[in-house]
Amino acid sequence: MGELTLIRDITRWTASSVVRGLLAGIGDDCAIVRPKGTEDLLITTDLFIEDVHFRRDSCTAVEAGQRAMTRGLSDIAAMGGEARFALASIAVAPWTKRPFLRGFYRGMMALAKQFDVRVIGGDVSASDRFTCDIVVIGAVRRGRAIRRNTAKPGDAIYVSGPLGGAAASNWTLMPRPRLDLSQDLLRLRATACMDLSDGLSLDLHRLSLASGVEAHLESAQIPCAEGASLEQALHGGDDYELVLTLPPGKAVPDGLRLTRIGEIVRGKPGRVTLDGRALKPSGWDPIAAQNCGAGKITPPKMR
Amino acid sequence: MGELTLIRDITRWTASSVVRGLLAGIGDDCAIVRPKGTEDLLITTDLFIEDVHFRRDSCTAVEAGQRAMTRGLSDIAAMGGEARFALASIAVAPWTKRPFLRGFYRGMMALAKQFDVRVIGGDVSASDRFTCDIVVIGAVRRGRAIRRNTAKPGDAIYVSGPLGGAAASNWTLMPRPRLDLSQDLLRLRATACMDLSDGLSLDLHRLSLASGVEAHLESAQIPCAEGASLEQALHGGDDYELVLTLPPGKAVPDGLRLTRIGEIVRGKPGRVTLDGRALKPSGWDPIAAQNCGAGKITPPKMR
Repeated sequence: MGELTLIRDITRWTASSVVRGLLAGIGDDCAIVRPKGTEDLLITTDLFIEDVHFRRDSCTAVEAGQRAMTRGLSDIAAMGGEARFALASIAVAPWTKRPFLRGFYRGMMALAKQFDVRVIGGDVSASDRFTCDIVVIGAVRRGRAIRRNTAKPGDAIYVSGPLGGAAASNWTLMPRPRLDLSQDLLRLRATACMDLSDGLSLDLHRLSLASGVEAHLESAQIPCAEGASLEQALHGGDDYELVLTLPPGKAVPDGLRLTRIGEIVRGKPGRVTLDGRALKPSGWDPIAAQNCGAGKITPPKMR
Repeated sequence: MGELTLIRDITRWTASSVVRGLLAGIGDDCAIVRPKGTEDLLITTDLFIEDVHFRRDSCTAVEAGQRAMTRGLSDIAAMGGEARFALASIAVAPWTKRPFLRGFYRGMMALAKQFDVRVIGGDVSASDRFTCDIVVIGAVRRGRAIRRNTAKPGDAIYVSGPLGGAAASNWTLMPRPRLDLSQDLLRLRATACMDLSDGLSLDLHRLSLASGVEAHLESAQIPCAEGASLEQALHGGDDYELVLTLPPGKAVPDGLRLTRIGEIVRGKPGRVTLDGRALKPSGWDPIAAQNCGAGKITPPKMR
């Protein structure tokens, strides 16, 4: 396998008929995109690394590809956007043969097709561990992107689904990006939103810190996934549901399965409380995990 | 060092006052960019991996950062674009301490500032080897991006500077992205262009293949860098000069140091000849290099 062969394979694996606003995809120095003048573009990039985000022995190639793509798509969902394009940079490991790569792209493309996303570029290289960096480009009507730094005291805090399911399954449950909610979030005029990739306690801490507010949660209201403990719902991560805030008194249509879990209040920026007591942010942190080991990565959780 | 601390550091290290078209940079799920309705966007992504693209013992942290950024900026230059934004995803290795990261971002930012590029996002994670994926977003007037698949028989082939200098220096010479040429390439109406990252023989093969044409080179015309052999100029790579084609008879202004090295002809797509004899594409291929070793990457060249 050489670089030219691999790029040829990838070009075939990512072939797709979706072409809105695309002038050039894989095969040139850059991809060329023609943006609409009425939209803002959302850009996100997420690493997906062997033994940090997945293990070869507990994840198929297709699942690995789906997970890698989910991380990027979920960031677009968190801002109320529509996903459009993706670029995937991969570094193959010595063990990575063509069937794995074929499966990995199949997994990515399954999600890409489901959400009308076209893979338009990337890079290929080599490393010790299989590594992928996924870039996703989305779009949202000008000025309508939902930020994480705009939650206001008095806002109600909601989550988009049950939490802790990933942890309860020992992180084998396949997450899905909540792009189906983007339009609803915009219609509801959500004041802030982010995706729950690292765990509610850590991610809500980030949202509150960015917004300069405090977040109060009530344990009885937190929707735990089947088989998941409250601990797992709070800190497990990898659920890829959304946490969002709505203005005081905003009614949520019945069809939308949003669960109110607490309230934004004035207070110490970044502080999160559970039933009135401080909740320590303790989700997933790959960098701290690495520093804890003796020069060896021993992640507490695999995702 | 934890993820939150590192992101805080990076946010400070990448602070910059350039804000054209930027609504949100580092600190949210996505960066938000407002494109002009008169422009196409160019998007490129390039991996930069320890022991593949640089070695710790022969490259300072600042140089590593410059090299990583150069790879992305050079792709924008190759299409006649202006670089605008960059995102950097990094995976820290166990040996990667804060001073290295500080230097790496200093190197990236030196180039970013030189070319008015703002670093607006990225991801942080951990791996065995220090890994960086640089995404660069550029812009070009609608429909004016210079592709690599549009060279025509009769076009003259030019390079933007002497070649082989990187190889002659054992790949220690610091390359520079030729963004200074973008406007000239557009004014000259270059028919095709790409950057010489992997070596003239391999990159010109790619351009010819994409354009469905053959490329004839004359060895006497190829500008060798000081101390570089013809071999190094042809296959050394890492020079980051541009190879471009101009319509027949197009005059090049004196001030522009473009050197005519050959001609595009009808023939076998992708075939490159030197003085009438077939020239084998033999630049840098990290994937083939990995397959050659016994499960261990032994790149023939470090970049």
